[in-house]
Amino acid sequence: MSDHNDPNLDAAGPDPAVAAAPEGARSGRRSGGGRAGRQAARTARGAVSAPYLTRTMPPVEVLDDAGLEQIEENAETILSEVGIAFQETPEALELWSAAGAHVEGELVKFPRGLCRQIVQESAPRSYIQHARNPARNVLVGENTTVFVPNYGSPFVTDLDDGRRYATLADFQNAVRLIYSIPNLHHSGGTVCEPVDIPVNKRHLDMVYSHLRYSDKPLMGSVTAPERAEDSIELCRIAFGGDLGDRTVLTSLINASSPLRWDATMLGSATVYAKANQASVISPFILAGAMSPVTVAGLAAQALAEALSGMAYCQLVRPGSPVVFGTFASSMSMATGAPTFGTPEAGLAIYVMAALARRVGVPFRSGGQFTSSKYPDAQAAYESAHTLLPTVQAGVNFVLHAAGWLEGGLALSMEKLVLDGDQLGAMTVYGKGVDISANGQAMEAFLTNPPGQHFLGNAHTLANFESAFWRSDLADNNSYEQWLDEGGKTSAERANERWKQLLSDYRPPDLDEAVDAEMQAFVQKRKSEMPDEIG
Amino acid sequence: MSDHNDPNLDAAGPDPAVAAAPEGARSGRRSGGGRAGRQAARTARGAVSAPYLTRTMPPVEVLDDAGLEQIEENAETILSEVGIAFQETPEALELWSAAGAHVEGELVKFPRGLCRQIVQESAPRSYIQHARNPARNVLVGENTTVFVPNYGSPFVTDLDDGRRYATLADFQNAVRLIYSIPNLHHSGGTVCEPVDIPVNKRHLDMVYSHLRYSDKPLMGSVTAPERAEDSIELCRIAFGGDLGDRTVLTSLINASSPLRWDATMLGSATVYAKANQASVISPFILAGAMSPVTVAGLAAQALAEALSGMAYCQLVRPGSPVVFGTFASSMSMATGAPTFGTPEAGLAIYVMAALARRVGVPFRSGGQFTSSKYPDAQAAYESAHTLLPTVQAGVNFVLHAAGWLEGGLALSMEKLVLDGDQLGAMTVYGKGVDISANGQAMEAFLTNPPGQHFLGNAHTLANFESAFWRSDLADNNSYEQWLDEGGKTSAERANERWKQLLSDYRPPDLDEAVDAEMQAFVQKRKSEMPDEIG
Repeated sequence: MSDHNDPNLDAAGPDPAVAAAPEGARSGRRSGGGRAGRQAARTARGAVSAPYLTRTMPPVEVLDDAGLEQIEENAETILSEVGIAFQETPEALELWSAAGAHVEGELVKFPRGLCRQIVQESAPRSYIQHARNPARNVLVGENTTVFVPNYGSPFVTDLDDGRRYATLADFQNAVRLIYSIPNLHHSGGTVCEPVDIPVNKRHLDMVYSHLRYSDKPLMGSVTAPERAEDSIELCRIAFGGDLGDRTVLTSLINASSPLRWDATMLGSATVYAKANQASVISPFILAGAMSPVTVAGLAAQALAEALSGMAYCQLVRPGSPVVFGTFASSMSMATGAPTFGTPEAGLAIYVMAALARRVGVPFRSGGQFTSSKYPDAQAAYESAHTLLPTVQAGVNFVLHAAGWLEGGLALSMEKLVLDGDQLGAMTVYGKGVDISANGQAMEAFLTNPPGQHFLGNAHTLANFESAFWRSDLADNNSYEQWLDEGGKTSAERANERWKQLLSDYRPPDLDEAVDAEMQAFVQKRKSEMPDEIG
Repeated sequence: MSDHNDPNLDAAGPDPAVAAAPEGARSGRRSGGGRAGRQAARTARGAVSAPYLTRTMPPVEVLDDAGLEQIEENAETILSEVGIAFQETPEALELWSAAGAHVEGELVKFPRGLCRQIVQESAPRSYIQHARNPARNVLVGENTTVFVPNYGSPFVTDLDDGRRYATLADFQNAVRLIYSIPNLHHSGGTVCEPVDIPVNKRHLDMVYSHLRYSDKPLMGSVTAPERAEDSIELCRIAFGGDLGDRTVLTSLINASSPLRWDATMLGSATVYAKANQASVISPFILAGAMSPVTVAGLAAQALAEALSGMAYCQLVRPGSPVVFGTFASSMSMATGAPTFGTPEAGLAIYVMAALARRVGVPFRSGGQFTSSKYPDAQAAYESAHTLLPTVQAGVNFVLHAAGWLEGGLALSMEKLVLDGDQLGAMTVYGKGVDISANGQAMEAFLTNPPGQHFLGNAHTLANFESAFWRSDLADNNSYEQWLDEGGKTSAERANERWKQLLSDYRPPDLDEAVDAEMQAFVQKRKSEMPDEIG
């Protein structure tokens, strides 16, 4: 079932400590270990929890090699016969022409295999995204999974104040909360849109807030090339003045599907690639509208779009880190509304993850999606039916892993902590079944007669504490006890939890001079801009 | 990934119509087709929806052959060195002694391989459970999945009347509701306990109610051998006076884990086996209490217990249908309370399903479990995290597939319809990815230029209606529309739905003479018994 094809990847997967290895240690396509760096990191990090999930269980496959090869063939047919539009991007068209593609106006048609070849020649199989706190560096790719929060919602909602347009204060509270949730490995990007700040300035406040209120890795702005530049500059300051070759941003570049890249997104991708920053090259597909309605059809299209975007980044700078991204869901045949947590979308995750493994690049998909307007049973069914396929498929970069409500229009503070809690369960699926002697537990059977419980058995006592994943938000008490404690629903308990977490929040250390320099940069840039109302 | 080992099973799985094939057509271990019967059934059934789920996607495996073989070895060690207690069952001990086992008091130790050999020699790989309506016959085993409702709850709860002890009226409403939910293939058994009826008489009312208010297949009583006899007799009447060799009941025989069978359960299993009725032989394990805390440990124990129980049924009547059952979950290390929907329990389902396939018998596990007291996000997260592994693992008989709340103590009317809705999504996972020419959708790409949506494409129009599974209870509308419609949570919508379904309910046809004969039997049996207060 496994088709990891990196000979350097040992059976147990990379040591989590590698995340803090010196820059570049694993960023080459076939790079070795960095043992000394790992050792140092292991010592330095101390008791910090795992910075990302390492999967030792092979990914689940839902399609055999013949099926995957057919989809790959179809993607090549799309690339060579239908082509991809690169809109208002003369620089890209020139690069493609030089690389041997056929450019017809803004339409680029690729000889079969060209995009794949370009990607496979230079795109790293995995890369380290550095965090301000090296203990929170993440390894993106191979058999790791990084959980990243909700992205892009104009609204925020909670049980106290209801749904409203998000403000910078909401954004900052969300960043604080994400910092406080151990299973969120990443601070994310536009966790909600601070619509009280002019659209051309808000990226400065967002990136600064991530760097100020968290020390987890973050995402940069993609809404204009100069905002990408600003994102990098703020990181340069925060990371001590010189990034070197370090990748410190992983940013979201959406295709204008079907089969189209626009100047804004591609311009930002260009800025990031030149600076060796990572881009998640993401086909954005609601099947039926932006692609055909079938899983095999949308997967072929997603592969074609992702290959063309990733190859473009390699033309800009060979070796720059890219992630094969997809956002794919279904729609209601009755109303045309997007639907989430559907089984077709779940199957698509498995298929596309397998396609990305065969390319040999990190993969982004999945999350915890729902179209519900409240953190209720619908929200949880749909989220869970997205999350388990996400982890079983072996997704590396999981955007929207927590907080998503209402088809992504709203960030729910309650769902942020509810989803965050569920992410913990996924570490168990990452590990799989322990078949060691201790896992087999034969000494327990041989010391326990039929009919006698195992509660006092030595094997139970030795393993009990770590035996089962435990939810922090589920109520397993008796009905009477639950009633005594107020008979609260899961959403009501989550409401108490996020307020408690915010009240307990303490910001990570930040050098005052660095903070002042970031603030000065933000002020200077803002003073250079007129206000644009978004 | 697939290890179906039945040479008679074609790639696409058995035709659903086989469910209505003539009695015995597929009940033999290596029986053939019954083509004429299928044809007749297909015609007879008309527009009735699929009577069970047929999976064409291979089951997901989380452990390789070496791991599974190790667990099988361990089960044999448990059977041969630790043994299984058969309490107060002299008949069973005699059968075991004659079969070559070592009987020490009530403890039976089995030569390595004996139980497996007995099961593999005569237990059917699959069997047809006949329903009163032949269109609802179910094929249990191979690549089918039968969804069966909640079982055994003393309480019933709904949003109007809250939680209270269940009555016969509640039981009958539940049966009506289950009849109305298309994805529940089975009427179940003790869907809730009618505690207003004396404990020694309530089985008569329950079995009669299933036969009166539904025409789906059902489960028989197991709380005493004579109640099993009564269950069979009521079916004999309902099925026209002569069951022949037809299997019309699949009943739940729980082990008194660890490693113990008691006289009540074994007595009922004996009655059912003698009458060629099916028993689900179910280890009942909360890991840490009734087994060691590890997945590999509990799987070895479950295999040992199930093999001993299934082999016993084969000694009673070779060829009698048995199901390898398991109920396995975890517990809170903080309070000792059972916990549900945990990832360890999910992994265990995959492992035990693989073990059952290797034995070559149908498998029961999974469902939609939760320890929540309300049909909220916790309930749905936990249920979904049980259901997807259940279907992916290839479980054949899914008890507790809908309605379970509060660790099984309460049947929730809202959760019954919420869970029932979710079951529909699982048909998509059963089918897997369509890689046919239509599934590949290449004609859509070749007729659709980059940037143009696919809504009007001929391929979309031809496939749109059946493209996506659609929830009947999820709300995918806009926030504003949702608010206009009352801003109801998922649980509140489910409350309206089950009341509507009950109001729309029309009972299936039942011959008046048959009904009168069943009622007379119930009255006669009740008149022979004193009231026992449960």
